[in-house]
Amino acid sequence: MDNEIPDIVIGRLPVYLRELERMVRDASKMTTSSHELAERLGMSSAQIRKDFSHFGEFGKQGTGYHIHYLIDRLTEILNLTREWPMALVGAGFLGHALASYRGFQRRGFVIVCVFDSDPDKIGRAIGDLVVRDVAELEEAVRAQHIEVAILAVPADAAQATADRLAAAGVRAILSYAPISLTVPPGVHVSYSDPVVQLQQMAYYLSPEAS
Amino acid sequence: MDNEIPDIVIGRLPVYLRELERMVRDASKMTTSSHELAERLGMSSAQIRKDFSHFGEFGKQGTGYHIHYLIDRLTEILNLTREWPMALVGAGFLGHALASYRGFQRRGFVIVCVFDSDPDKIGRAIGDLVVRDVAELEEAVRAQHIEVAILAVPADAAQATADRLAAAGVRAILSYAPISLTVPPGVHVSYSDPVVQLQQMAYYLSPEAS
Repeated sequence: MDNEIPDIVIGRLPVYLRELERMVRDASKMTTSSHELAERLGMSSAQIRKDFSHFGEFGKQGTGYHIHYLIDRLTEILNLTREWPMALVGAGFLGHALASYRGFQRRGFVIVCVFDSDPDKIGRAIGDLVVRDVAELEEAVRAQHIEVAILAVPADAAQATADRLAAAGVRAILSYAPISLTVPPGVHVSYSDPVVQLQQMAYYLSPEAS
Repeated sequence: MDNEIPDIVIGRLPVYLRELERMVRDASKMTTSSHELAERLGMSSAQIRKDFSHFGEFGKQGTGYHIHYLIDRLTEILNLTREWPMALVGAGFLGHALASYRGFQRRGFVIVCVFDSDPDKIGRAIGDLVVRDVAELEEAVRAQHIEVAILAVPADAAQATADRLAAAGVRAILSYAPISLTVPPGVHVSYSDPVVQLQQMAYYLSPEAS
């Protein structure tokens, strides 16, 4: 089944999951419909039904979806029934913000170690963690069976760090460095570059406006 | 022309632009090919040629692309021939990281004001800026003709803040809040939620691995 689901569909599942969890938390709702979900997410209900159809029957026609069932199924499909320990590389302003972010753990991920190469940062506390020397990266990744990492290092250190992470066994990297990385087969990279997102939106703004 | 280019193609243009600028900066290169660009970006050269074909002729068959010409064309297409002033709302750890990020200005964007609702943060300096009371948001957005904003507020404040930004004339919002926003027609939102990205990658990892 895995190879048949388009990446773009997989990319929407976490958004569905996030919204469903929000519906439970904020409104204690038990059931929903593709129409309600579509309304809340600003997309079409047909799109949602089509996405869900990749995974068999999520709900009965007419009676809607049981939210808890949907949450459980999406959690299972996305491999979130376990918690993923993560390494964070880079303890600058961004690394600090990420290490302090309380939204990871509730949603399946936990930063278990933070690294930097700057002697001024090594040994300092960030939240509950102490910044370690990046020289210890491979050792820590192997010892703690870490397969997911966040890269918050400058652009010129990103490729070398990604190489080291992959060699040590990391299979998923969320990179904040503004460059495209080359990784071995089997390693997944997801990029977060605010300027790429801003430039994409700028296309839709008329340049003369201000 | 604007309405005919798929969003997904527009989304790749900033990535092409970023890589081309990197080629000029790091290697002082003058020309490139769809094959070289594809190799560096980990995508297919056919995809790149197809994307470029939406915008007419970017290069001659056989002789490759002139990098500076390509950069100029992409800059023009993406409305980056001007600089976009931005408002940043939220001066927590993430807001601090964003306000300190030096990568914006070189690529067409500049944060010109920062807001928070926390009296402890208002009046403090972040880089060259002083955090202002979010009560002054609309006034500042209008006075400085700001059309682009970054939302780095907690989830429960995000929708109300987005409403205020849109009402004041903002047409593009980059949101770091982990919720889906509802905005009026003509307002663009781009989301950055690290957990959504991590969960998407987790799909491709076998859960038994560790």
